[in-house]
Amino acid sequence: MSAPLLSPTELEAALRAIGAERYHNRHPFHRALHDGKLTKGQVQAWALNRYYYQARIPAKDATLLARLPTAELRREWRRRIEDHDGSEPGTGGIARWLRLTDGLGLNPEYVESLEGLLPGTRFAVDAYVHFVGERTILEAIASSLTELFSPTIISERVSGMLRNYDFITEETLAYFTPRLTQAPRDSDFALAYVKEHARTPHEQQAVLNALKFKCGVLWSMLDALDYAYVTPGNIPPGAFRPA
Amino acid sequence: MSAPLLSPTELEAALRAIGAERYHNRHPFHRALHDGKLTKGQVQAWALNRYYYQARIPAKDATLLARLPTAELRREWRRRIEDHDGSEPGTGGIARWLRLTDGLGLNPEYVESLEGLLPGTRFAVDAYVHFVGERTILEAIASSLTELFSPTIISERVSGMLRNYDFITEETLAYFTPRLTQAPRDSDFALAYVKEHARTPHEQQAVLNALKFKCGVLWSMLDALDYAYVTPGNIPPGAFRPA
Repeated sequence: MSAPLLSPTELEAALRAIGAERYHNRHPFHRALHDGKLTKGQVQAWALNRYYYQARIPAKDATLLARLPTAELRREWRRRIEDHDGSEPGTGGIARWLRLTDGLGLNPEYVESLEGLLPGTRFAVDAYVHFVGERTILEAIASSLTELFSPTIISERVSGMLRNYDFITEETLAYFTPRLTQAPRDSDFALAYVKEHARTPHEQQAVLNALKFKCGVLWSMLDALDYAYVTPGNIPPGAFRPA
Repeated sequence: MSAPLLSPTELEAALRAIGAERYHNRHPFHRALHDGKLTKGQVQAWALNRYYYQARIPAKDATLLARLPTAELRREWRRRIEDHDGSEPGTGGIARWLRLTDGLGLNPEYVESLEGLLPGTRFAVDAYVHFVGERTILEAIASSLTELFSPTIISERVSGMLRNYDFITEETLAYFTPRLTQAPRDSDFALAYVKEHARTPHEQQAVLNALKFKCGVLWSMLDALDYAYVTPGNIPPGAFRPA
């Protein structure tokens, strides 16, 4: 079955349709999180596992950075690493995520050790890092396009968590505020890039499949959490056990 | 915390203790499968997803084969690829696995397309292929040691499935019979190799961690199946839906 050549506008619409169906704001665990349906232990498990995603994002971006052909592209992409790693100790997205795990009462050394991580989290995040090293640059950039949809999920998450959990404060959610401006800036660039560079039906399908892949990464992280921490008795051997 | 140096016998005992705690014969989905608690659609989902594991095992073994330093080691390891890919069309482990999916009424083109695969299955299996390419040869060989425990699970699976499902026959379970002799032969070699070559506490811990990693691969594949196909409403977007 051969796919038609889409106009740039049609390609963007097809990307947004994938988000509408597959982005993880539709996942039952996300809804339970922002609706206040989770225990503190379950929120700890989410923050602990999501830490690994945050911690590997600079590795993902550096893997792509190493493959980009021009200083212009590399400057654009390097900003993402700066956002996550910061400019000095205690700054950047990873450090801000640790304020959340601190606020939830998790020992930062335990969080950073990755000892309690669900294997499903590790495999999904590592799949993302490998993807940007193995696929075309076009696909690697397209896989970042879940950020098109992240301002919505961040607003839902922040307002819902502040409203519903007395153990969550604005300070512990400091991670999310800068993301509300960083994510649109980054996704504007990536969207313009794929609209310009996906010029054949084959390239356009590869771009759409890259976004599906990435939605699968985020979705399966919530599958693993929902399975392990919502139904009693399912925590895999060696993974974090809430007190 | 520094680990002690183990004797080869103690190392083997520590490996077997990991299997006793973490091998996937202890997973609720495995128990449900062999106890006859699953519907045909759920067994189809298992066979479809497990197909990807079978199909990638030669890639895993070829990745390691390419890194082995001597003809002697490569001859030993090459046999594993022959077992899975066969010597002519229709032979070998992958072809035998397709007899199972055929017998369950799945279209082989659909199975081989991987379209309906759970993302969690893909990420876990790919993590295994990457592991043997990225870690030391000692760790890569140690990660195969789940085969120490596979004769037990195969016997449970075959007898339980034949007894409990009228849609399962000895012919559809043809995959498993040769594995009862291949797996012990392969794991005898791998166990002797790691007992001989893991000579420092650091190397021994790496070997133990490699087996834990691999148990996590198999376990998280069953987590993904149990989550998606046992509780209604959890099948992720794009994945196989039983008729």
